[in-house]
Amino acid sequence: MLSFENDYSCTATPEIIEGIRQTVAKQYPGYGSDEICESAKAKIRAACESPKAEIFFLVGGTQTNQIVIDSITPQYAGVVAAGTGHVNVHEAGAIESTGHKVLTLPHHDGKIDARELDEYCADFYADGNHAHMVFPGCVYISQATEYGTLYTLPELKAIRKVCDGYELPLFIDGARLGYALTATGNDVTLQDIARLSDVFYIGGTKVGAMFGEAVVFTHGNMPEHFVTLVKRHGALLAKGWLLGLQFDTLFTDDLYRRIAHRANTAADRIREALSERGYTLTFDAPTNQIFVTLDNETSNRLQRHVRLGFMEKADDAHTVMRICTSWATTDEQVEKLIALL
Amino acid sequence: MLSFENDYSCTATPEIIEGIRQTVAKQYPGYGSDEICESAKAKIRAACESPKAEIFFLVGGTQTNQIVIDSITPQYAGVVAAGTGHVNVHEAGAIESTGHKVLTLPHHDGKIDARELDEYCADFYADGNHAHMVFPGCVYISQATEYGTLYTLPELKAIRKVCDGYELPLFIDGARLGYALTATGNDVTLQDIARLSDVFYIGGTKVGAMFGEAVVFTHGNMPEHFVTLVKRHGALLAKGWLLGLQFDTLFTDDLYRRIAHRANTAADRIREALSERGYTLTFDAPTNQIFVTLDNETSNRLQRHVRLGFMEKADDAHTVMRICTSWATTDEQVEKLIALL
Amino acid sequence: MLSFENDYSCTATPEIIEGIRQTVAKQYPGYGSDEICESAKAKIRAACESPKAEIFFLVGGTQTNQIVIDSITPQYAGVVAAGTGHVNVHEAGAIESTGHKVLTLPHHDGKIDARELDEYCADFYADGNHAHMVFPGCVYISQATEYGTLYTLPELKAIRKVCDGYELPLFIDGARLGYALTATGNDVTLQDIARLSDVFYIGGTKVGAMFGEAVVFTHGNMPEHFVTLVKRHGALLAKGWLLGLQFDTLFTDDLYRRIAHRANTAADRIREALSERGYTLTFDAPTNQIFVTLDNETSNRLQRHVRLGFMEKADDAHTVMRICTSWATTDEQVEKLIALL
Amino acid sequence: MLSFENDYSCTATPEIIEGIRQTVAKQYPGYGSDEICESAKAKIRAACESPKAEIFFLVGGTQTNQIVIDSITPQYAGVVAAGTGHVNVHEAGAIESTGHKVLTLPHHDGKIDARELDEYCADFYADGNHAHMVFPGCVYISQATEYGTLYTLPELKAIRKVCDGYELPLFIDGARLGYALTATGNDVTLQDIARLSDVFYIGGTKVGAMFGEAVVFTHGNMPEHFVTLVKRHGALLAKGWLLGLQFDTLFTDDLYRRIAHRANTAADRIREALSERGYTLTFDAPTNQIFVTLDNETSNRLQRHVRLGFMEKADDAHTVMRICTSWATTDEQVEKLIALL
Repeated sequence: MLSFENDYSCTATPEIIEGIRQTVAKQYPGYGSDEICESAKAKIRAACESPKAEIFFLVGGTQTNQIVIDSITPQYAGVVAAGTGHVNVHEAGAIESTGHKVLTLPHHDGKIDARELDEYCADFYADGNHAHMVFPGCVYISQATEYGTLYTLPELKAIRKVCDGYELPLFIDGARLGYALTATGNDVTLQDIARLSDVFYIGGTKVGAMFGEAVVFTHGNMPEHFVTLVKRHGALLAKGWLLGLQFDTLFTDDLYRRIAHRANTAADRIREALSERGYTLTFDAPTNQIFVTLDNETSNRLQRHVRLGFMEKADDAHTVMRICTSWATTDEQVEKLIALL
Repeated sequence: MLSFENDYSCTATPEIIEGIRQTVAKQYPGYGSDEICESAKAKIRAACESPKAEIFFLVGGTQTNQIVIDSITPQYAGVVAAGTGHVNVHEAGAIESTGHKVLTLPHHDGKIDARELDEYCADFYADGNHAHMVFPGCVYISQATEYGTLYTLPELKAIRKVCDGYELPLFIDGARLGYALTATGNDVTLQDIARLSDVFYIGGTKVGAMFGEAVVFTHGNMPEHFVTLVKRHGALLAKGWLLGLQFDTLFTDDLYRRIAHRANTAADRIREALSERGYTLTFDAPTNQIFVTLDNETSNRLQRHVRLGFMEKADDAHTVMRICTSWATTDEQVEKLIALL
Repeated sequence: MLSFENDYSCTATPEIIEGIRQTVAKQYPGYGSDEICESAKAKIRAACESPKAEIFFLVGGTQTNQIVIDSITPQYAGVVAAGTGHVNVHEAGAIESTGHKVLTLPHHDGKIDARELDEYCADFYADGNHAHMVFPGCVYISQATEYGTLYTLPELKAIRKVCDGYELPLFIDGARLGYALTATGNDVTLQDIARLSDVFYIGGTKVGAMFGEAVVFTHGNMPEHFVTLVKRHGALLAKGWLLGLQFDTLFTDDLYRRIAHRANTAADRIREALSERGYTLTFDAPTNQIFVTLDNETSNRLQRHVRLGFMEKADDAHTVMRICTSWATTDEQVEKLIALL
Repeated sequence: MLSFENDYSCTATPEIIEGIRQTVAKQYPGYGSDEICESAKAKIRAACESPKAEIFFLVGGTQTNQIVIDSITPQYAGVVAAGTGHVNVHEAGAIESTGHKVLTLPHHDGKIDARELDEYCADFYADGNHAHMVFPGCVYISQATEYGTLYTLPELKAIRKVCDGYELPLFIDGARLGYALTATGNDVTLQDIARLSDVFYIGGTKVGAMFGEAVVFTHGNMPEHFVTLVKRHGALLAKGWLLGLQFDTLFTDDLYRRIAHRANTAADRIREALSERGYTLTFDAPTNQIFVTLDNETSNRLQRHVRLGFMEKADDAHTVMRICTSWATTDEQVEKLIALL
């Protein structure tokens, strides 16, 4: 059956599979201390224009969010995030399992607002009794967000400024960073991300890799003994070169951007078709995730032919569904879907 | 350079690489809810002769030890293990990070002794003040152990009996289970492991897979909402079929046993050569790990030509080194090593 | 300076001080295994009309909330509470420090609504993807609430019914239970609390004791090895008889109710005076906490003569302040305050 | 029945009870922000000759050990302690519950040896693979130890030197510090303790107070937002002046030393009587704890008349029992005990 359910339903790009195949006859040192990892890191540093960036490869997104937040947030503090943030809603309490509260701000199409962040912090410190409360300890945002929307460069700069004011590290979840960087109308570059954040990650799992997220500490601020912290979380991959190879491949010949752009193009094509046919887009989002508010009849009809992602009931008669393209989406799949609309 | 440093320095068996390649054109549902995982589980259940076994695939060994122990051990309790156990020594505090103490017993060539376990528990409950102490909450052993040694069937049964007496679940770390099952002189079958333990895992990372450990809850005792517990630990792989496929391949045509046996044969050949040349084997172990006590001069000479694992200083003049074969070790590598001895 | 800042600014009732004095010449066994604790437990069981109730004395409220919630909530679950609940706002992350998320419902004058609780749970299980979310694991409410309001008996029964439907234990924080039980118009008895909850506590710190909270597991459901869990949290008082003696005293001759009633009477008198003078009560609450919305000028004027509790800014020109009576409030203090209004 | 079971079986010195009584008519600000706490801190600073010392009052010993260790030990590290240390054996896993492993050294009559500590650290860093192990993160010792023995000044200085070499904070558990400071032959002063440690505590629970331990950070090194960390552990006492008053009283007119000395004198008298009668003292200890190895018959006979502490079976025919004096022990009790020997 046709599926636009998510962006992690295919194994990996052929280039990565071929790369894996070529390692078979060789031996590598363990835990990421191999040359392929070094090569991948060098390419990422170059792409970020951040010669001092420190990079660590992890397997999955929740794992990455958990480890990064736990390692940069003081014991007396929590992580500030949108109420809709992945760390608040869809990680089964992984953040709290490390002892940190998720402190939520209202979301605006999935994004937090710099002014509201500023007010939150100002109110926190204004309250004389804040010693009995959880301090804001870092700020978590996603680019692209849960709803496929993007922070603009001015928005990012404004958040950075508030973070500076309260000495809060800014962590950007880039599980879908590829789709963000290559979206129509996006004005935030990878170099901007590296410059404006304290730590971010480049998502592989949803953008062409079998698995893997490349965590980038942007200015020599990787927490001390980070490899031990990763091991302590049970997250240190024995055969680290598998991670290095995937990112080395993705950052060769611009592959990461090329495949992400393809997914956005497919999504744009679907959005256009939806608009032409009078469908209601739930959010104005330019990346590979399309949220559409369907009457239940249409929703049911479509799902007899194509797997979509369920998001939430809008009201008794309508449902918000997600149509998700990926680096692996083919023109043929897009046309089949459009024919069903 | 020649390397016998460890058994996780090669990517995976060609069968697995080929299997991965064949998934490229397809789409799969996420998080292990796919048909390949189901197929792999069926094959493992059959191999264990445990139709009721519940199976969950995880990525790595420390992760598996952490999640299993945390999910089966009460809050007021710890895990009983050999002082040399992997969970006590080489996991960067991953067990304690979940709030559980590792309660250590003396080791005998890496193994715990049923009688000492019994005495430990008896003493614990005899002491009227034990409410202020960490209760024994489960028992952790490895087959093969850290030192490549094996529990015999009578030894395993004796431990099981003590566990029954104190209602302690028995967890067997099988990171190197393949090498244990196929070792010369081994009398413990996979079915014995399944029958005598409450939970164990079949190691993939060190026995032919790119990564992956198959956790087997042997009698309908998988903790409630285990998938949520795994997600909470940041350990739920998005593309679960990658794990399923590897175990499906390893449990087809007896591949798991065949490749493990090959590693043992290579190790036997090396052990024979060491003995002939008068080297001192530190432990009498029949699996793929060979521990040899070398005078420092020999140790240094060898390491100019071959990478070995450092274990510990025996005394000022001697060092214990590990020679580790794997499923990927070739006859040519073995002969080269022997020529150096 | 006159103070109505809180209800924990005086040491203890004279009866308790005298009781402590009388223990001086004696020796007691440690950790609560003494006869005074047994006597106190018997009196509480009788007052609750719960012969099977199991009782444990702890030192403070946050400690109690942390230990109870941690011991009754599964690892995969969190605690459902009002967004304004003490555990969510004013405990410095004590709940999250044990790995559990606080799942918030909207509050209505500090209370949760049974129907909204029901919908929350229904939605949770309706969402097919809930394995990636934090399960509701227990329900936390306070009687009286943070805002001095009370659940009515029908409201409590409705919450109990929802808890039954989803097999959620109901935990009632009774830090100010005395003030709730003796408030004008209250229709919920101590026996109701014991019957309708799975676990609750009788607050001592804010109702006449130097310190101490009596946790009551209402139906033989005290978690296994609870004393060890308490010790593990660093919360086991060596000289347990100090706790037992205080509760034994409070539950002799109805002292607990008598002193609480006195505080409510003082608060009623103040509320009356506030109403007569046209002040705006922020909540319609019958217990010892009075929340009043003051224009800033009045607020500042009052605070030159009396210490009040700051709650929040209502708007740029108004502030919500708390006037808090206690078991120790004297008529003279009340009259002085009223004279200032 | 006569009891020498422990040193926390009596309520408090009369001076403290009287001090508590005198607070009854007053109101105090909460959480330790009162003037009595300030006065007590000033007296402790003076006694330590440490004008920069920061002091925090906590309720109990396990709580104190847990909070101090958790707040000074990095996430990737554990606490180094004697295998017999209270934190390793008798705290129900309170340390591990905060995610930190207890790393054990051999004990010598309850004490660790500076040379062995040095070797432990040297070996740790020598092992190239230590990134997979728990780092030593702080050092925990007790003065007096679990066995009533004392570190000499040269021993303490030697440990301090090793700590300096590896940048490890030194934490001294002073639950029985009074008994240590006033023991015959002791050469370590309170000022030495303050000078040689990074943090220590002055035990109140076992030395005259109802409860309470005064944590002293010796050189401006109290962890940031420590009050929030304490609250997060559920350990912040609402009526902080109860703690302040007890330490203010103990540090007035040398009361702390005077009552501790009395206990040591009683213990010396008992030790003398034991020696005269040919009993075997298990350890050569000068403080209020006497460990004596009894044949089982004598042990049983004595326990019909006096409560003693059980320590361990020495062999099938002998038992090690503890005779514990305290600040409350009377001459009459001592004579009664001696008459039984």
